[in-house]
Formats: sequence, structure tokens, C-alpha cells
Amino acid sequence: MLADKSLKAFLEETASKSPVPGGGSIAAMSAATAAALTEMVANLTIGKKGYEDVQEEMMELASSLPSIRENFVSDIDRDAEAFNRVMDAFKLPKETEEEKTKRRNAIQDSMKNAASVPLAVAKNAFKIMDLIGKVVEKGNKNAITDGAVAVMMARTAVLSALYNVKINLGSIKDGDFVKVVYDEVNQLEGKVNEIEKEILSKVVL
Amino acid sequence: MLADKSLKAFLEETASKSPVPGGGSIAAMSAATAAALTEMVANLTIGKKGYEDVQEEMMELASSLPSIRENFVSDIDRDAEAFNRVMDAFKLPKETEEEKTKRRNAIQDSMKNAASVPLAVAKNAFKIMDLIGKVVEKGNKNAITDGAVAVMMARTAVLSALYNVKINLGSIKDGDFVKVVYDEVNQLEGKVNEIEKEILSKVVL
Repeated sequence: MLADKSLKAFLEETASKSPVPGGGSIAAMSAATAAALTEMVANLTIGKKGYEDVQEEMMELASSLPSIRENFVSDIDRDAEAFNRVMDAFKLPKETEEEKTKRRNAIQDSMKNAASVPLAVAKNAFKIMDLIGKVVEKGNKNAITDGAVAVMMARTAVLSALYNVKINLGSIKDGDFVKVVYDEVNQLEGKVNEIEKEILSKVVL
Repeated sequence: MLADKSLKAFLEETASKSPVPGGGSIAAMSAATAAALTEMVANLTIGKKGYEDVQEEMMELASSLPSIRENFVSDIDRDAEAFNRVMDAFKLPKETEEEKTKRRNAIQDSMKNAASVPLAVAKNAFKIMDLIGKVVEKGNKNAITDGAVAVMMARTAVLSALYNVKINLGSIKDGDFVKVVYDEVNQLEGKVNEIEKEILSKVVL
């Protein structure tokens, strides 16, 4: 698993001329980081004087966020695997007509998968912005900048993942699939900067 | 070193109720990631047909970026240490007048350091946006979305670091220091979103 590598080695591998891990995996990492910071703010609010009214909400957040974070951590690999599947499909034999058809279908399937994986990351990263809004508004004020960083990491995760969706959509021939996915991309793109701005407006230093 | 931990363990530690690593370290990690992706795009352009004219520039980038990335990786720890120094200063004895003065000075010094560390991260992350612009404009078009992700990670690194500067400035009594730093914060904040937007406008999918 890529996330079992040291952070240093993971970044070295990202920097290398191997295309994976690339932007799609980094989108997932960014989402995992946003989830981690949100969890930290919830944890720093639990048991804190002055925050009695929000204890239950913070405990719910602290218990739901670990699995959300771990899912994003798995997405780091999922994205790399999706990219490798595309590469493998391109390497299939293309001598006979049958091989050509098989290869073409494999490429199309792998491309759809390579668009679907970051689309799921984008959707899930978008969803946690709501949780980040809660910790920024109601969580420990000493950790409010951590909430601000979390929302910016989540926004960057959403948009980064969407770039990776779009670059794959360009090669997909199934018009219905492309239309449905583009609609989702546009919806998320249209909202994410506004939501980031709204949450950051609550961080007054 | 924090970056010697597995990415998974680093995120777990971020999520925990310990305030370090927190948003300041994540800002540095985000900058390191931006540097890594930029380096990857340069590496994917070197030796590539159709990119003969930019070989020298890409080789320069690929040779300068590793140390930039490693410096950001060290900043992950620098930020955590700066936070711990503030905590240690607050724990100093405050019985006698002499102890009180010593403690007050130690707190102020540690706060200045805790503002200076993320300010350096913000400035350096801002600087690499120029390098990212180069790989987006001239680098391998197949990796253009990696450049897009890099610029968003750099923007998020700058703004995240600046939040960490500002939260510390609030407690610093040296008016001249505060004024100088605020001017730098405002300058960076005023430009970073515009530069991100400009670079992203070149990423047409």
C-alpha cells in the first residue's frame, strides 16, 4: 500500500518520472489530510471547558472521521491502480480483429474506471466540507486555523480529483456515461469554491 | 523526523488529540507535494519527443526541485518544533519577578519563531508557483493535470501557512515585528489566488 511508505519516500516516488502516484493519488491524500485535521479539531474539543453544548456532536465526528480518512487513504492506491489498468489495457495485443476489439473494450472500461475513482474522491471530499464547517463553527477556537487548513485541503482535493476525471472523460466514447459524469463534475465545480469561501469567512483571527 | 513515519501513521498522528502535527505542518506537506508533482512533470518531459525546445529548462527544474521539496519536508518538523517551543515557554516557572520576566520573554521569542516558520513556508510555496507555471505551460501535456494539482496544493500551502502566521501574530507584543510580518502576509494573500487562477486557465481539457 502506498500509504505504508514513509511520507518522505512517498513524495520521492511522486516526484520520480513514474507517472504514479500522480495528481489523482495526491487528490486522495489531500482529502485524507482534510479528514485528519477535522478529526483533530473534534478531538481537541472533546472534554474541553466551554464546549459542553457540542460534546455529543464532536464525539460523533471523532467516531465517524477515522473510517472516512482510511477510505481516502485507500483511494491513494485505488487511483494508482486505475491508472495502471489503463496502461495495461493499452499494452494488450492488437494483431487480429478479435484482439483489437478486446483491447478497445478493455481500454474503454479502464478509462471509465479511471474517471470513476477520482469522481468518488471528489464527491466524498465535497461531503466532508460539511463536517469541516461544523468544527470551524463549533469546535475549539484554539484550533480554528486547523479547520481553515482542512477546508482548503478538501477544496483542493475536490478540484484535483475533478481534473483527473475530466482528463479521462476526453477519451471515453460512451456518450451517456460522459454526459452523466460531466453533469456531476460541473455541479461540484460550481459549488466547491463558494463553500470554501463561506467556511473561511468564519475564521476570523 | 515526522516524514520518516508512514503516510498512514502521519495522518493518524495528525488526527489525534495532540495538536502537533497540525495545520502548520500540513501546510509544509502540501508545499512538498506541490514541489514533488512539479518535479514529476519536469521528469516526464525530459527526453520526450516534441519537447526538444524545453529540455534544458526541464532539466534545470528537475535538478533544483529535489532540494526545494526536501526543505519543505524539513519544514513539517520545523513547524511542529516551533509549536512545542511555545508550549514549553508557557510551562516555565512564574513565581518570582525574575522568573516572570524570563517566561514572558521566552513566550514572546517562541511566538515570533512560530510566526516566522510558517511565513518562510508561505514565501517558498509562493515562489514555486512560478516553477509550476513553467511545467504547466511547457511541460508534457499528458501530465498537465498534475501541474494543475501542484498549483492548487501550492496555493493551499501558502494560505494555510499564512493562517498559522496570523494566529501567532495575535499574541506578539513587538509592534514593529507584527507590522512587518502583516505587510508580508497581506502581499502574499493578495496575489496567491490570482496566480493560481492564471495558471489553471492554461489547463484546458
